[in-house]
This record gives sequence, C-alpha cells and structure tokens, in this order.
Amino acid sequence: MARQAKAASYQLMKVSSDIKDRSLLEMASSIKQHASTILKANKRDIALLRKRKNISQAFVDRLRLNEERIGAMVQAVRDVAGARDPIGEVKRMWKRPNGLQIGKITVPIGVICIIYESRPNVTSDCAALTLKSSNAVILRGGSEALYSNSALYTAMKKGLKRAGELPEGTVNFIDTADREAVGYLLTLDEFIDAVIPRGGEGLIKAVAEQSRIPVIKHYKGVCHLYVDRFADCDMAEKICINAKVERPGVCNAIETLLVHKDKASIFLPRVIHALKRKKVEIRGCEKTRAIVSKGVKKATEEDWFTEYLDLILSVRVVNSSEAAITHINRYGSHHSDAIVTENIHEAMRFLQEVDSAAVYVNASTRFTDGGQFGLGAEIGISTDKLHARGPVGVDELTTYKYIVFGSGQIRT
Amino acid sequence: MARQAKAASYQLMKVSSDIKDRSLLEMASSIKQHASTILKANKRDIALLRKRKNISQAFVDRLRLNEERIGAMVQAVRDVAGARDPIGEVKRMWKRPNGLQIGKITVPIGVICIIYESRPNVTSDCAALTLKSSNAVILRGGSEALYSNSALYTAMKKGLKRAGELPEGTVNFIDTADREAVGYLLTLDEFIDAVIPRGGEGLIKAVAEQSRIPVIKHYKGVCHLYVDRFADCDMAEKICINAKVERPGVCNAIETLLVHKDKASIFLPRVIHALKRKKVEIRGCEKTRAIVSKGVKKATEEDWFTEYLDLILSVRVVNSSEAAITHINRYGSHHSDAIVTENIHEAMRFLQEVDSAAVYVNASTRFTDGGQFGLGAEIGISTDKLHARGPVGVDELTTYKYIVFGSGQIRT
Repeated sequence: MARQAKAASYQLMKVSSDIKDRSLLEMASSIKQHASTILKANKRDIALLRKRKNISQAFVDRLRLNEERIGAMVQAVRDVAGARDPIGEVKRMWKRPNGLQIGKITVPIGVICIIYESRPNVTSDCAALTLKSSNAVILRGGSEALYSNSALYTAMKKGLKRAGELPEGTVNFIDTADREAVGYLLTLDEFIDAVIPRGGEGLIKAVAEQSRIPVIKHYKGVCHLYVDRFADCDMAEKICINAKVERPGVCNAIETLLVHKDKASIFLPRVIHALKRKKVEIRGCEKTRAIVSKGVKKATEEDWFTEYLDLILSVRVVNSSEAAITHINRYGSHHSDAIVTENIHEAMRFLQEVDSAAVYVNASTRFTDGGQFGLGAEIGISTDKLHARGPVGVDELTTYKYIVFGSGQIRT
Repeated sequence: MARQAKAASYQLMKVSSDIKDRSLLEMASSIKQHASTILKANKRDIALLRKRKNISQAFVDRLRLNEERIGAMVQAVRDVAGARDPIGEVKRMWKRPNGLQIGKITVPIGVICIIYESRPNVTSDCAALTLKSSNAVILRGGSEALYSNSALYTAMKKGLKRAGELPEGTVNFIDTADREAVGYLLTLDEFIDAVIPRGGEGLIKAVAEQSRIPVIKHYKGVCHLYVDRFADCDMAEKICINAKVERPGVCNAIETLLVHKDKASIFLPRVIHALKRKKVEIRGCEKTRAIVSKGVKKATEEDWFTEYLDLILSVRVVNSSEAAITHINRYGSHHSDAIVTENIHEAMRFLQEVDSAAVYVNASTRFTDGGQFGLGAEIGISTDKLHARGPVGVDELTTYKYIVFGSGQIRT
C-alpha cells in the first residue's frame, strides 16, 4: 500500500486543481449517498464499544454519527474543494548576477500517514486536505471506529472512482485493528514522507518515539491567561470565562490563570465567583487561597503541568510579568497563551518572550484554529517548532522546491 | 549543558540585532587573535590522525588548518554579522471580521544541536549562523578534530565573553570524544529543539534512527544531468563537464548522466571523449557501450544509487523524458537535478515532475548552495522535505509564531 501510495504521489505532482476539486466534490456526494450504510456501520461500532468497560459517555458521543454530522462532513469536503489550491505558488523569484533565475515554489510533500483516534470525521477531513494539497495519504483510524471509518472510506473511494481522474493509491485506509501495523508503517521511510498522529498524548508519544519518518506532533494544550497589573478587569473576566468554559474539552481552552500580585485582591474574588457560577473547580496557590479562602482547593506542582480538558482551573498569583512568562514557558505546552493588559510595553514583551505557537493580547485563546485564523480547514494544531507551528492546514501539508532557469551557466 | 542552553535560548529571544552582531564581530576577532593556538592544536590532531591506519590524504587535507583557512573562517563570521537579521520579520499580518489582528512572525527555534565530522570551520560557521538566528547551540565535532575544535571554541568563547552581552550557555561545545554523549544528547527533547547532523551517510542515518528530537537531514547528493533530445549539444557538454569535474567531492556534483536515445549517438561520443580528457571514469549502460565501446565500463544497478564523490560518472541512455524523470526520482537522492533542453514543454515538465530540492533547466547543478542562490551562508543542504529543503541558512534556523492583537474578543 505504501509503495502504491508513493507511485500515486508522483502522479499527483502533475494533477490540476480542476481535477482535484472535481474529485473532492464526487467524494462528498458519495459520502452523502452512502449515509445510511455509514450510519449502520457506526451503530455497530457503538454497540461494540458499549460492551467494553470504563468507556465514558463523552467517548461514545465523539464516536457517534447521525444525519447532521454526516451532513457536516460532506460540507467540510465541499468547502475544501472550493478553497484555493496551495500547490504551484511561486513564493519568490529572483535573479542572480550571473543571470540565473531562481524561484521557490510550493509542491506536495508526497505521502502522508495520518494515525488518529475516535471521531470518524477525521477520515474525510484528512482525505480532503491531503488530496487538496496533492499528497497521497494513508489513513489509520482507531479500532473503536473501524466499521464507521471503513464504510466512510468505501464511500469516498466510490466517489473518487466515479470521478476517475486520480491514480489508484491516492487515498488509502488500513482496514485492520492490528496494532503491529502502526509500528510497521513507521519504518517505511522509503515510501512515507511525513506522519501526523492525532489523538491522546499516549498515541503521539508512542508514534514520535517509534517513527523513523518525520512526525508533525500535536501535543496537549496547557494554555494560560495572564492578567497583568494593568489589565481591564471586566475584559479579563470575560476572556477568562470564555477561554475556560465555552468548550473546556479542547486544546485551546485555558488550564491556568496567572494574576499579577497587584491585581490579585481586586480581580480574584470576582473571577472566582463568576467561574464557580459556571461550575468550574478552582485549584489555587497559597496566595490565591489567602485572598479567596472558601472553596479553593490547593494546587500542587502537578497541577501546573496538567491539561484538565474539564471544568477545572488552576490559579496562581505571580510577582511580575517576568514570573508569568517564566511560568508559561516552563509549565505550558507552547500552544496558546494570552495576556490581558492595557500597557503596550507589557503586551509587546509578552508577545516576544512567550515561546508558544499563538500568543494573544486581550483576546481569548480559543481562537487558535485554522478557521478562526482565516487559514481554512485544519488537520490539527502543531506544538512542534519545525515545519508547522500552530494550525496545520493545506499550506502546512506542502513543502517547496527551488526551480532554476539558466541559459548554460556553469560554476567556476 | 542542555539545560543551560535552554535557559539561554529564552534570553536570546529578546536580544537585539546590534548585540548579536557585536558579539559575532568579537568572536571573529578572537579567532584571529588566537590563530597560533588553534594552529598548534590542529597540528596535534593531524599528528594523531597520521598514526591511524587507512586514513586518506583527502581526509587529512580536510582537517588541516593554516593561516589562510583561519582567515576565511574569520571572514565568514564577519559576513554573518553583516547580514540581515532573520528574526522578528512579520511575514504577513491580516485582520479578521471580528477585529482580531493576526500576524505570523519569525522567531528562533530555541536550542539546536549540531553533530558534525572533520572540517573545523564547521565549528565557527555553525556557531555564527545559530547565534545570528538567536538560537542557542550545542556543538559536537568529530573526535579527529577534537583539539582543533576545542581551541577554536575557547577562542570564540573568549570573544563572546569580551562582548559580554550574551547569556552563558549561548554557544556550547561537547569537549569529549565519548560516543555515548551523542546517544544521550539525542534523548534530551525537553531541552533541545532540533538536531542537524553533518557528515557521512553513516553518521546521519545513525542520528536519524536514534533521535527523539526532530532532525534536519543532509543525505548524500546523487545528482543527475539529463540531456534531452532537444538539447543544445555544446551547452550540454559544457554543463556536464562543469557539474562532474569542477569539484567532484561535493554533494551538488553530478553522479549520473542521462541522455535521450535520439541524442545519444551524436552527444555521447563527444562528451565521453571530453570527460576522459578530464580523467573521468565512465560506467555506461548497454546502449551507451554500444555507442562508445572503448573504455566504458559496465554500469551495474548499484551504480545508479551511488554517490561517487570522485571522478567517476555513470551514463544511461533513456527512451523518453518520462524515463529520465522516473530514473531520477527512483535512484536519485532528491538533491539537485538538471535538464538541458531548448524545448519549453520538456523544461516545464522536468521542473514539475522531478521531486528534488533544486531542479535546473540549462544550468549546472553545482549552483545549489546558499551563497550561489543569494541566500547567504548555509549550514548544509537539506534533502528532507519538512521544514527545510535545499540550502539551510539563517532563515531555515528560524520558526514562526502567531501573534494576535485583540480588544477583548471572545469566541462564541
């Protein structure tokens, strides 16, 4: 399969935008047509899942499909078809003194392997984004969604076959729950150019450690809001509630609130009161507990590292902006962090010194998202520094090459 | 050391261009001042090397320093000081419908570990380029150059200390030949953000396989020249001689000449004659040997994969441009490949379909080089596809982050 994907990737280098977009639209239509088959397969996955122990309702919910969710998947693929082609863009072209004309042009990466868990929409999202960027893809979903993903893949393949313009091997799916398959895939650096794991920390760590192929990682989001001594308290409260409560289970929600000591006695009582009304559990440092004694648990060292993904917030009072920045760089996951301040110097310092993919002044961290940034659909949020940082969309699924036009130049 | 480098990297995020450039100039002066000590240390390395068996003269030559080479190293560091600062460049800034202003800005990667062999100039080149891009660096040179590198490092450190404006831990050097040190370094993903191995294929493979840290690889250069049926024979010959002979020991020299069958009987006799006058050994396919029978060895399957780094050239007659492109993508190392043709369609197809870091029309592959491309000094030529492809200069030693300016926006 990997060999066939590599062969397809060379064909994909020359496929036009029109062909890609037509194929994507056929893929979308075919998913829609086969909705009932996909839903039936999904019921089977859910039934199997219910027989397992220790499965949370949230986990079952993530896996469950319905007409509406399939409609959203179909629309997502159509949106990708309608977006601009990231391939063949000459980023820059310049002339050298010897007359050589050198250009830097975007090209596909080649073969991308995506290893993911749970939500079946990842199957169609990833197939669409990799195809749009002229890459071949090998999809490997979680065992808990095997029937759903398999039915979805079959529908997509039928659509692609009907379009009939792309090489066999463009979109591939590993139709087995066998765990050894992943270990084997990660050795195939001859055929696979990049691996993108999507899922829990365990999955991503395991892939990163095993892989001989470059990995684009999406680690956890331990995001912070820092309320500076020059903060507007109303704005700070509004942003804090939004960043914690609007959707606590996602990676760009905050886990820790840092408050400057000069602001703590004014700001902490009101924000903690507001958070508690939203049913948020508070875990505070000593200074926080000295200000708000009632109903604030003691935060441990472990708390500062923790991605709760839940209605829990750790709170710490810091002596200075430097201390806030040091805390964020030390305990955070370099994902998204925000300052609330009215002071330009504090704002600029925070932007410069916080070592994260997205750094905010006076806005909620919840905006870290390809769509919200205006970059289009994304495969995930990279916490890596090489190649892609932050939202990974079609542009991050490309690489570049240099093209050089000469008239017989030699080097002497 | 890695921990100290990480701490330094956070300080470096806020260091100005002026400070960096002053420090580089002091570093350069100090290398110059300590030239005699460095030369003495180099003599010691050379003496030790001569006691070892199976050491080629070329290897000794690469290691040897003299006044002139030290002068070139000093100048290289000064040139880096004089170049533009790659950090803090806002690549793009845009406004979202909700008023958020989002910018993509270049920032340092953090801590870079460079593992290299032989030439001592790598020590000063890499220190200069990583410092220019505001990264901390951990240098690990080859055991054969330990005294030279160590003396050079001591001189550089003295210069940095005299400048006195950078944190301790900015430039670090592993002062031991202990091989276990490398294995240990490659596990320190908490402190080191990227690893760049420079040297033979064995070193790079070993680093890539062991490392838990992302690696920017520089594999071999199996480069091709394809002489199309629409080629100008004079131009093709001139380029072929240049790309093979001017400096055969470098990665952007060609190893294989591909010739379209319609051109073979005209072009092969003259080019092989010219190559032989330059003492190039020819290894040809059956068709080549049918045209030029005298003094052409038989090429084996192995030859097509081989980077000779020597005055040897494999030659193959191909039936079509497709066949040439397929050969290059299959046997090449995705480094630099050129077509000679007068035909626009052949040229454009070659540019599009050859999957290499640099693809040329009517010019020698020898131009793949940061300086020749006008990109400034380079650490090497990446044959990877993620993050950096082709010349790795100061721009490739940066990453980016998103900075977001709001006025209280929340996501709903």
